[in-house]
Amino acid sequence: MTQDFSLLFAPLSADNTTLQQQLYQRVKRAILDGRFAAGARLPATRQLAKELQVSRNTVINVWTQLQAEGYLISDRQGSRITPVALPRASTASTPAMLPLAQRLNNLHSGHRLSRDDLPLRAGVPALSHFPFAAWRRALNSVLSQTPQRLLGYGDPLGESDLREAIAQHLGMTRGVRCLADQIVITEGTQQALSLCVTLLTNPGDTGWVEDPGYRGAKAALHAGDLSVVPIAVDAQGLAPLDRHWQRSPPKVIYTSPTHQYPTGAVMSAARRLALIARAQQHQAWIIEDDYDGDYHHRGEPIAAMQGMTDNAPVIYLGSFSKTLFPALRIGFMVLPAHLTARLRPALHELLRGGNRLEQQAMARFIRSGDFSRHLSKMRRLYRQRQATLRTELQRLLGEHVQLLGGDSGMHLVLQLSQSDEALAAALWRAGFAPAALSTFYLCEPKQQGLVLGYGNTSTTQIVAGVKQIQRLLDHTSGAGNASE
Amino acid sequence: MTQDFSLLFAPLSADNTTLQQQLYQRVKRAILDGRFAAGARLPATRQLAKELQVSRNTVINVWTQLQAEGYLISDRQGSRITPVALPRASTASTPAMLPLAQRLNNLHSGHRLSRDDLPLRAGVPALSHFPFAAWRRALNSVLSQTPQRLLGYGDPLGESDLREAIAQHLGMTRGVRCLADQIVITEGTQQALSLCVTLLTNPGDTGWVEDPGYRGAKAALHAGDLSVVPIAVDAQGLAPLDRHWQRSPPKVIYTSPTHQYPTGAVMSAARRLALIARAQQHQAWIIEDDYDGDYHHRGEPIAAMQGMTDNAPVIYLGSFSKTLFPALRIGFMVLPAHLTARLRPALHELLRGGNRLEQQAMARFIRSGDFSRHLSKMRRLYRQRQATLRTELQRLLGEHVQLLGGDSGMHLVLQLSQSDEALAAALWRAGFAPAALSTFYLCEPKQQGLVLGYGNTSTTQIVAGVKQIQRLLDHTSGAGNASE
Repeated sequence: MTQDFSLLFAPLSADNTTLQQQLYQRVKRAILDGRFAAGARLPATRQLAKELQVSRNTVINVWTQLQAEGYLISDRQGSRITPVALPRASTASTPAMLPLAQRLNNLHSGHRLSRDDLPLRAGVPALSHFPFAAWRRALNSVLSQTPQRLLGYGDPLGESDLREAIAQHLGMTRGVRCLADQIVITEGTQQALSLCVTLLTNPGDTGWVEDPGYRGAKAALHAGDLSVVPIAVDAQGLAPLDRHWQRSPPKVIYTSPTHQYPTGAVMSAARRLALIARAQQHQAWIIEDDYDGDYHHRGEPIAAMQGMTDNAPVIYLGSFSKTLFPALRIGFMVLPAHLTARLRPALHELLRGGNRLEQQAMARFIRSGDFSRHLSKMRRLYRQRQATLRTELQRLLGEHVQLLGGDSGMHLVLQLSQSDEALAAALWRAGFAPAALSTFYLCEPKQQGLVLGYGNTSTTQIVAGVKQIQRLLDHTSGAGNASE
Repeated sequence: MTQDFSLLFAPLSADNTTLQQQLYQRVKRAILDGRFAAGARLPATRQLAKELQVSRNTVINVWTQLQAEGYLISDRQGSRITPVALPRASTASTPAMLPLAQRLNNLHSGHRLSRDDLPLRAGVPALSHFPFAAWRRALNSVLSQTPQRLLGYGDPLGESDLREAIAQHLGMTRGVRCLADQIVITEGTQQALSLCVTLLTNPGDTGWVEDPGYRGAKAALHAGDLSVVPIAVDAQGLAPLDRHWQRSPPKVIYTSPTHQYPTGAVMSAARRLALIARAQQHQAWIIEDDYDGDYHHRGEPIAAMQGMTDNAPVIYLGSFSKTLFPALRIGFMVLPAHLTARLRPALHELLRGGNRLEQQAMARFIRSGDFSRHLSKMRRLYRQRQATLRTELQRLLGEHVQLLGGDSGMHLVLQLSQSDEALAAALWRAGFAPAALSTFYLCEPKQQGLVLGYGNTSTTQIVAGVKQIQRLLDHTSGAGNASE
């Protein structure tokens, strides 16, 4: 078999890549492109080296490499091209043509790329008030103390020091009754939700979500191929009717009882206990998302469902995204005591324990009291900011302005009688990022409103933001009047 | 309705909790335990305060709190207990009785809690050689430079600086052709595998895994309810037969072509291209796990399948667990170019971007050249350690000792003719942690052997470990001889 190898002999360039790299790429590309026939014997290394003005070792190294990768076979007579089965263009499908998961149809984010530096955005804590010096101190004290033992794989459920600290904090502040053993550290609430779905449900099971409700919960249930049933929320939170229990009995129920997201409703004790009782009757799990329960603004914080009764079928989820900062990506779930041993083998298969150095720093940050001090300061700050927001809204929009929530957390809902999406978009263009309430609904009728975050929004920004809202509302009603 | 409230009047103790906390807990427990009837009117605050010797405000605060939580209703006449629906013990099921996901039956980890400080454990890099000073420098340079903008939620796909740095590194060292846009930062390979399953497959689809193969891949496919089909591995890696393609056509194929885990087989170029071609014909996805491709010990590193042909249906997975340290928990996946836009909405719903400060530090660590320098040093170290391991095994177990792998990575496989699990257990008791080869198999016949990690094992430990292996093997054959 004769073969034209002239392309191999073209001069190599003097650019950044080494001569060896260039020759390697040249031969490999030619083989992959089918320009050399299978079985063709390559020119002798000595001859090629001479022509290319490189050392013979350079050519030999390239041949050795191509042989290791299976492109060449070498024997005493030299090297031959191996038969390489190239995908035929006619039958080959491109990745864009390949089928994807059906569930992608349910996983379409409606919102813009996050701009959490914009004022009035909900769910972002006061980033400029984070005690970064104290945090660096905690982190550096971990980094400076023989960190080698913390570099390898740790407990898949997370650092036991942090789990101890969280169990203690939860017991004292949230009424959660658990041992460190029941706590699983996660990358945040989203991973915890996904784990709940993986551990507790089968595809096709029914999962209840709050309507309006947290988008991430719907995504997690959809990702597990659950049948997602929206349950309306009233002034006391999730309000399932008898027909829901009868016609769409749930396998899991997602709820945020302490401060319903986004309406801010607080679920009453009676409603909580009734939900636990019916869940037990229907053998359903409750996923209790306590995303901002540390920021209760009236009286003592309301205790979690998890600790209300013995044997509550509750998985409690918490996160440091709102209490420290979102980019930390540390959250946790609390498993029921009697289930921990049964779930641990699966958790060992699915988890790798998270970033151990950050977790150790977090444990120190809690134990040193820095965490509690920060929480107290933020509670005061958020109360002030909420008061300013209320005052400004009432001052500019009138005493009769309809506001929801405020017992906890970092946002208020302003109810509107007009469409909220256009207003939210106009505010976005003006540099403010409240969310449109209607986008949190799955079912009609969708209430219209603005979810106004005050966590990461200064007093000046609150004043400017409310003024902007008033201007846009006036403009709309003005336009309406003009067209009459 | 008359009600005995005497338990309320018992003196409060002078312990650590505040009087208010004690009273709150006392009333709430009594209500939850059903000791006060619904509708019963509580004693007047003034009277109770006087009896308990606390200020009236203390009692009022407790009443307000219990009212907020829904335990009390207050009117002008005072406060009444609300009807609280307590779960009836007879019908209530405990969490231990509730049904869990069926897939848990496939998610049972066979291995002990990780002790990655033990010598001969596979998959752990040389922790004591990690350039911690350089890493702290990178991290502190991020922490000291206006970190506020990095505290909030970032791009759900990860920091663009890191994605740029990874794309460049992959192009230069692994032959991966991609833009930063195609890269998704994950918490590690396990999360990347789980994402592949969520994005590409439906429950009941067929997923191929290597046999023997990586346990985490099987777990990820099982967690997505795939039908897991083991495909035998030969000296060139994954070796599917025609009958596999015909009878169990895959939706996804998991493979580690550069250094098959655990056998160390290198997939030839011909086999790679054939696999790509057949995957395209069958509209299947290939998940290429390049877990230790940066540590190639012979010639140039073998280029990844991802960059071999245009339009290869390949998702490439990489991780910094082996190149930096496992507890960092940073990995990544490379999506096909034409698919990135289509998958982004779902990824935005499922991901929250990871720890931004660590990602920025990682980007600096790569750009400063510290990463490349570390890789070069580790390559030399691992080559020396592998050579020592080979020499010792041949010296003590004989020239004819059967070893697999070694072209890449941080482990060798010692083939055995006797059962490996008892030997591995005995070595564990002696303080060494090689894995038993047979435990990586799903199908018979299971080859027996030891997976000997040399990454985190010093020369002295290697010498001691091989001596221990020899002793245990001698003991076994000695015992065998004695019983003849």
